[in-house]
Amino acid sequence: MKRYFPPDPETMPKFAGVRTFMRLPHVRTLQEVDFVVVGIPFDDAVTFRSGTRFGPEGIRSQSVMIRNWHPVHDIDVFKYLSGVDYGDVAVVPGHVEDTHERTAREFKAIAEAGVTPFAMGGDHSVTLGELRGLAPVLGPLALVHFDAHVDTSEGYFGKKYDHGTPFRRTAEEGLVDTARSIQVGIRGARGGPEYYRQSEELGYEVIGMHEFERIGVQATLERIHKRVGNAPCFITIDIDSVDPAFAPGTGTPEVGGFTSREILNLVRGLKGLDIKGGDLVEVIPALDPGEITAYLGANLLFEMICLLALNRRGQGG
Amino acid sequence: MKRYFPPDPETMPKFAGVRTFMRLPHVRTLQEVDFVVVGIPFDDAVTFRSGTRFGPEGIRSQSVMIRNWHPVHDIDVFKYLSGVDYGDVAVVPGHVEDTHERTAREFKAIAEAGVTPFAMGGDHSVTLGELRGLAPVLGPLALVHFDAHVDTSEGYFGKKYDHGTPFRRTAEEGLVDTARSIQVGIRGARGGPEYYRQSEELGYEVIGMHEFERIGVQATLERIHKRVGNAPCFITIDIDSVDPAFAPGTGTPEVGGFTSREILNLVRGLKGLDIKGGDLVEVIPALDPGEITAYLGANLLFEMICLLALNRRGQGG
Amino acid sequence: MKRYFPPDPETMPKFAGVRTFMRLPHVRTLQEVDFVVVGIPFDDAVTFRSGTRFGPEGIRSQSVMIRNWHPVHDIDVFKYLSGVDYGDVAVVPGHVEDTHERTAREFKAIAEAGVTPFAMGGDHSVTLGELRGLAPVLGPLALVHFDAHVDTSEGYFGKKYDHGTPFRRTAEEGLVDTARSIQVGIRGARGGPEYYRQSEELGYEVIGMHEFERIGVQATLERIHKRVGNAPCFITIDIDSVDPAFAPGTGTPEVGGFTSREILNLVRGLKGLDIKGGDLVEVIPALDPGEITAYLGANLLFEMICLLALNRRGQGG
Amino acid sequence: MKRYFPPDPETMPKFAGVRTFMRLPHVRTLQEVDFVVVGIPFDDAVTFRSGTRFGPEGIRSQSVMIRNWHPVHDIDVFKYLSGVDYGDVAVVPGHVEDTHERTAREFKAIAEAGVTPFAMGGDHSVTLGELRGLAPVLGPLALVHFDAHVDTSEGYFGKKYDHGTPFRRTAEEGLVDTARSIQVGIRGARGGPEYYRQSEELGYEVIGMHEFERIGVQATLERIHKRVGNAPCFITIDIDSVDPAFAPGTGTPEVGGFTSREILNLVRGLKGLDIKGGDLVEVIPALDPGEITAYLGANLLFEMICLLALNRRGQGG
Amino acid sequence: MKRYFPPDPETMPKFAGVRTFMRLPHVRTLQEVDFVVVGIPFDDAVTFRSGTRFGPEGIRSQSVMIRNWHPVHDIDVFKYLSGVDYGDVAVVPGHVEDTHERTAREFKAIAEAGVTPFAMGGDHSVTLGELRGLAPVLGPLALVHFDAHVDTSEGYFGKKYDHGTPFRRTAEEGLVDTARSIQVGIRGARGGPEYYRQSEELGYEVIGMHEFERIGVQATLERIHKRVGNAPCFITIDIDSVDPAFAPGTGTPEVGGFTSREILNLVRGLKGLDIKGGDLVEVIPALDPGEITAYLGANLLFEMICLLALNRRGQGG
Amino acid sequence: MKRYFPPDPETMPKFAGVRTFMRLPHVRTLQEVDFVVVGIPFDDAVTFRSGTRFGPEGIRSQSVMIRNWHPVHDIDVFKYLSGVDYGDVAVVPGHVEDTHERTAREFKAIAEAGVTPFAMGGDHSVTLGELRGLAPVLGPLALVHFDAHVDTSEGYFGKKYDHGTPFRRTAEEGLVDTARSIQVGIRGARGGPEYYRQSEELGYEVIGMHEFERIGVQATLERIHKRVGNAPCFITIDIDSVDPAFAPGTGTPEVGGFTSREILNLVRGLKGLDIKGGDLVEVIPALDPGEITAYLGANLLFEMICLLALNRRGQGG
Repeated sequence: MKRYFPPDPETMPKFAGVRTFMRLPHVRTLQEVDFVVVGIPFDDAVTFRSGTRFGPEGIRSQSVMIRNWHPVHDIDVFKYLSGVDYGDVAVVPGHVEDTHERTAREFKAIAEAGVTPFAMGGDHSVTLGELRGLAPVLGPLALVHFDAHVDTSEGYFGKKYDHGTPFRRTAEEGLVDTARSIQVGIRGARGGPEYYRQSEELGYEVIGMHEFERIGVQATLERIHKRVGNAPCFITIDIDSVDPAFAPGTGTPEVGGFTSREILNLVRGLKGLDIKGGDLVEVIPALDPGEITAYLGANLLFEMICLLALNRRGQGG
Repeated sequence: MKRYFPPDPETMPKFAGVRTFMRLPHVRTLQEVDFVVVGIPFDDAVTFRSGTRFGPEGIRSQSVMIRNWHPVHDIDVFKYLSGVDYGDVAVVPGHVEDTHERTAREFKAIAEAGVTPFAMGGDHSVTLGELRGLAPVLGPLALVHFDAHVDTSEGYFGKKYDHGTPFRRTAEEGLVDTARSIQVGIRGARGGPEYYRQSEELGYEVIGMHEFERIGVQATLERIHKRVGNAPCFITIDIDSVDPAFAPGTGTPEVGGFTSREILNLVRGLKGLDIKGGDLVEVIPALDPGEITAYLGANLLFEMICLLALNRRGQGG
Repeated sequence: MKRYFPPDPETMPKFAGVRTFMRLPHVRTLQEVDFVVVGIPFDDAVTFRSGTRFGPEGIRSQSVMIRNWHPVHDIDVFKYLSGVDYGDVAVVPGHVEDTHERTAREFKAIAEAGVTPFAMGGDHSVTLGELRGLAPVLGPLALVHFDAHVDTSEGYFGKKYDHGTPFRRTAEEGLVDTARSIQVGIRGARGGPEYYRQSEELGYEVIGMHEFERIGVQATLERIHKRVGNAPCFITIDIDSVDPAFAPGTGTPEVGGFTSREILNLVRGLKGLDIKGGDLVEVIPALDPGEITAYLGANLLFEMICLLALNRRGQGG
Repeated sequence: MKRYFPPDPETMPKFAGVRTFMRLPHVRTLQEVDFVVVGIPFDDAVTFRSGTRFGPEGIRSQSVMIRNWHPVHDIDVFKYLSGVDYGDVAVVPGHVEDTHERTAREFKAIAEAGVTPFAMGGDHSVTLGELRGLAPVLGPLALVHFDAHVDTSEGYFGKKYDHGTPFRRTAEEGLVDTARSIQVGIRGARGGPEYYRQSEELGYEVIGMHEFERIGVQATLERIHKRVGNAPCFITIDIDSVDPAFAPGTGTPEVGGFTSREILNLVRGLKGLDIKGGDLVEVIPALDPGEITAYLGANLLFEMICLLALNRRGQGG
Repeated sequence: MKRYFPPDPETMPKFAGVRTFMRLPHVRTLQEVDFVVVGIPFDDAVTFRSGTRFGPEGIRSQSVMIRNWHPVHDIDVFKYLSGVDYGDVAVVPGHVEDTHERTAREFKAIAEAGVTPFAMGGDHSVTLGELRGLAPVLGPLALVHFDAHVDTSEGYFGKKYDHGTPFRRTAEEGLVDTARSIQVGIRGARGGPEYYRQSEELGYEVIGMHEFERIGVQATLERIHKRVGNAPCFITIDIDSVDPAFAPGTGTPEVGGFTSREILNLVRGLKGLDIKGGDLVEVIPALDPGEITAYLGANLLFEMICLLALNRRGQGG
Repeated sequence: MKRYFPPDPETMPKFAGVRTFMRLPHVRTLQEVDFVVVGIPFDDAVTFRSGTRFGPEGIRSQSVMIRNWHPVHDIDVFKYLSGVDYGDVAVVPGHVEDTHERTAREFKAIAEAGVTPFAMGGDHSVTLGELRGLAPVLGPLALVHFDAHVDTSEGYFGKKYDHGTPFRRTAEEGLVDTARSIQVGIRGARGGPEYYRQSEELGYEVIGMHEFERIGVQATLERIHKRVGNAPCFITIDIDSVDPAFAPGTGTPEVGGFTSREILNLVRGLKGLDIKGGDLVEVIPALDPGEITAYLGANLLFEMICLLALNRRGQGG
């Protein structure tokens, strides 16, 4: 049986070759793969800085430095998983609804093939398209959502679809099981106290950054595990959950975010959840001097893939 | 009678104060002004790099270095003109048609007040909105269009409005008098020879960069003057008409463009045309190391304003 | 009664319009305002890198992302306060004493009008000018000073006024009540142990970074509150108190500074102090890739404004 | 018969997808292709700034903006040619001789398959490896060499292989027909007058930049055509032949080089030569703010490919 | 007796003059000096990004901001030590073995003169050259090694010398006493669990980052002191031990590293060890927006020099 | 007799070693030298962007790429000249008059020793200090002045000394022979037509950029030679005479300036003038992405040194 994995860096240096995620083969197949990494280069639903349509390119470029083996989990991902760089969704620039539709179609096909998708945004609006594709196949998903913002607003300028609304839409459309879902790292401030309440009214649990600072990584992880339990779940990370010092290249940064070690430990601590997919969004390479944002983003995607590998090894829990 | 002009730099250093175009008062008035400078921070109609929604900010920032007096024309603009920074159009991010509508409404009001508008883009789609506001008041305008691309395509992804289509739409809607209009500097290459022909079929005259290289600035200016004659005209400059060395900060650059001196002399040579407005589009500050693109853009807008001042002084011709 | 506050971002996107602090109206008035934000674009008193004369521009540019409501304090600032962007002091480049004089004149007028000023530097020498304006009206102020350096040196090159001397001058001139004043985060190293002693000899309390690392945010806050008590106080933050990873864009950085969360929590913890003004200095946009320094600086000014709003709401303590 | 060409940008936006040269399929085949584009990410033979190992990545990234049709030649390249992005040579970092050997092996296979290679450097040492692969199949080649430096030095530090020596080695090894070869744009200055003489002694004709400035593009092209005649030829462009304003991202820049329009017209003017391959070397993305160097480099490779297409169309001459 | 120390910054501003390390006299002498700072601008042994050949220039440039007195140790370094900037080793670009040989020769001479060297890399391969010079004079050294990677691999591409192998070579050649040596901060992941084991098999103790996160700075320092004891020791810091947010300018970054305060406290805590030299490697200025990496690197070298000064004062322990 | 010249790059790579101008020995001697290169890192007299105090560092850094032999003049500079990097003048930051005094003292000593100085600014105010030192020894000098601005204003903010006034002061103080002096490239626009007239009234000849565009390099050179004749002369180049595309890193750029080839040919064409010194001012490294401004500046200083060497060889004319 064919398996897909990165080439040996002793044979081809890591800086050589066409840039794909982790140097995986770029093959548009759903056969004999456990996971696909797919880009959604769309940024026309942003409320501040644009440029995240180049997020997939930036993440791919930096991801080639990542190795197959994870030293903390002590697992070689490709012993348990076969994966490809599936390329990008054929987005329609300037048209969020067409893009959602195309994204949903792709993700539905992926889910139907029993393959786990990991997406590179694009702005956070793309998650709606992803979940519209996954939920019809997998059922409503528990959401583990790291972000500076709740993204559950009603709309903006009288429009329904922008990067501040996806998790209201996913709740309204029954794509997520909000009773099993949780938002972590929130510190945005649109409007007033209703900003947090609107998430809670939709059924999400919210751990604001201020609370996180008080309780720390371990207690937060306990809250997440308690919330999600054994529900099939989707991890969505907005890179702006991280502090601008660690992730300057994003469109609506908020001061006072996670450190790189905190977000890494948070994702590592999701070990045992039943991961059905994930995404990493809102990286803007043009605003990323030193490319540290794209590199951290690539690593967070790798951390998600490790969780899947751990499950396959049977040591997820 | 009240007049608006920049403060004396001996009183307030040019690097001090809130950034407005040329340090003009930021007043939202059409009374007692001859021209307004207005931003249209919209970039959701682009086919490659986004980020020109910050174009107005970048242009304003650099424009504060510009002085009132023009040494070649020997004219102090504010002896003949009163002008303000009118602020920005309230665009609807992600929604080109709503933005066009709001832009048209603003520009109609400006034209009705007998005020001459100079706009800072934004991607080139914004010119359609501008002309939809101006033409109902001023009649179809002759277009003097400097660009690397013809921007007369039918559409993209089956959509009518993006930054590659405005001058097809303006022709179709009768907003411009194509028989009096001319496109200069074209070297883009979408599709094939039909790329240039589609402009000509709409009635535009086209001077490609290759031809410009052969005939030079003076002969080009003669062609422009002959074409436009005494028709009321609108100048639209896509900064990508200029070579990437002089204007790196743009979204769809094309190698082999104008030098700064060529474009400056081209605009200076429009002296005598009956200027009814103008715009400068496609500046992306995030891709503009050294800010030379925004600074050149600001200067080109100043050159347009000088043409208006020369007309007022009665020496336009 | 007229009140000044930012426009609704649903009406005008936050990236649109002339850049003022938090998108506040740019009006040079002291009527019907509770606070003013004012720039002092002066950088000719620096001992290393210059460029902070563009600090106010950089801070304004990034500040437009800030929202009115503060999620930790749960307060909408503009329910309690009216404020404007007052523009910049008309500094005299290259001439620190003239600049001090002009600054003092402006700040005296502000204080006499009962308005609370928040200033954007400029290098740290500007604080001397500010306090020369405030103290004659408000009396000697308690200083809460976050910085990597004590800034109480005698002089440099035989000159009295540079960005390393303001808090010696303010003490000598009786503008501050050093017995109620405290310097936090100090880790600079000019000369020798006398560097810290000179501050203490002037009456300031000093908490070095090394001590802060040992005692933490809460104990530091207790020391500050104990020191200041209910004295009228002025908060001055040199952005170089923060670590270069979080604030690279400054002129005399020192490794090993505050994280963004520490400085945010320190300022938040000043709740209850009788705030009479504040400033944020030493931001250099040209050295601020990713603009994270200016953005953090803008947020710290917002945190100070929140403290004032809390006092007005009557929950300061 | 299968043909390889870029996907339709109406179906998949140009900014989407894995970055290959001109968005060509990344297939490692020599079947049914007329040309291949191949990267040689090697930079350990440089005498000043390193970093050109990321040249292929940078060139690929920018090349996606290039269209199939060339407006001056009026030719759609892919009507006449099938081409792929062949990936990169598996270089051995730090070891120039091993890298040469691997490069030669690849290029020999390409030539034997009757396919025309276009290479993306890497530093200029890579051309030696390329020609060692091509000459055994195609015979000694005429060289059309644009560069600021002659690259015919004996060695450096007592070593034979660095980016200043390849064209001495190619002459010594009989890989090029120096009597049919020409170097254009030279203005470097290693040593003294012998710097130019050493090239001439090897049989090359040299047109220094100073001479080029006097005689211009057309006379230079006549000299090149006269020199090369109908010999099979190889075009090698060191991007540092271009002025640093147009190509800052390179390792040993020299002031006073070609403008973008000059180098474009020089390459276009090679129409009719019997092109057997070409390369574009010395692009360093890390030193290329605005990415204009990589973009110009990508365009110059496209210009070479057009020459091949013109030959196939039978209008080369 | 002559002593070498930086000029008084009151006489010559710190930003003035030729850039040497800490503004020390640039004299190539081993007479009457206690320590030398020496650059090794070599980067042809790297496996990913090149550019660290400009590391010494970048570190020198930023180091001029450092003061003579250390506020935590309360010591003025130049009361106890005389030091010079010794310039750079005459490396042979592209040739790691020649460079090692030249480096070893220089370092042997330094050690024989009883002078303590502090080196600025260059990539980590340079440490092998340094230790080959020192060990024959000083005997096998205990190594205190901060790094994200163990650098004890067998080789790469079948070659023995690259920046991933020096500490295997130093062990094999008996240059270090691995039983007294320790590696701290490791989180790289080449291959699998054997990556850490290979270090342990060579005799090194390894504290991975994951373990460091659990035990913290103090416990780590105890482990180091217990390991090294009173053996003569060498400190080698790869700047990639630090998190990319604090040190973006490096070639093989790894997310989740030390903060600046952690690494500073770790080095300060080495007080009392018998320091025989040290180096700071892998700084790449071209990838260091804001120059914070070079500045942190310069400070870490200063911290090492302080340890030496403390020993001289007799308070090392 | 001792002679000073750069080390052989075969022995020490050009990227190695402490950065001095052209890698010349950094010796503070006036014995056995023909010329000195000296930095004046002062920028507190600027009216817009600051940062040129780092100009000498930036120019030194890039100058190490320059070779001893000039291919157009065919001269090896160091066959005829001995030269050193003299270091920087001990400026007094923030105090222009003290800095002038110190500069004058240094330059007087240099002139008295019969040594020719070439200075690296600093802002253009530094030329006043230089000429105050030279004129008392050499008599009033003819000035060949390339600039975008006349720099003959009366003052600014009621102050006499800033970077817009030096050539009024030099005229008033009799330091230059304005009847033999000429300003070339002027296109600035302060005030009105009196801006150019004020220079002419002081006796300078002015060739504006607009005139230069019409007459070209050769006719301009004839005008310069006719004007200066055989008078002892000083060349002062403000880098902003060059177009921002070629020299973005400067404080008061003006669009439409010289290309690199024009300015190089202009300086080369000064061959035969009796050069007594020169300077290159207004380079701001922090605003110089790609470092092309500093590199061009370094080359222009080298061109001046070549003129001196040509005079020594006796072929100046």
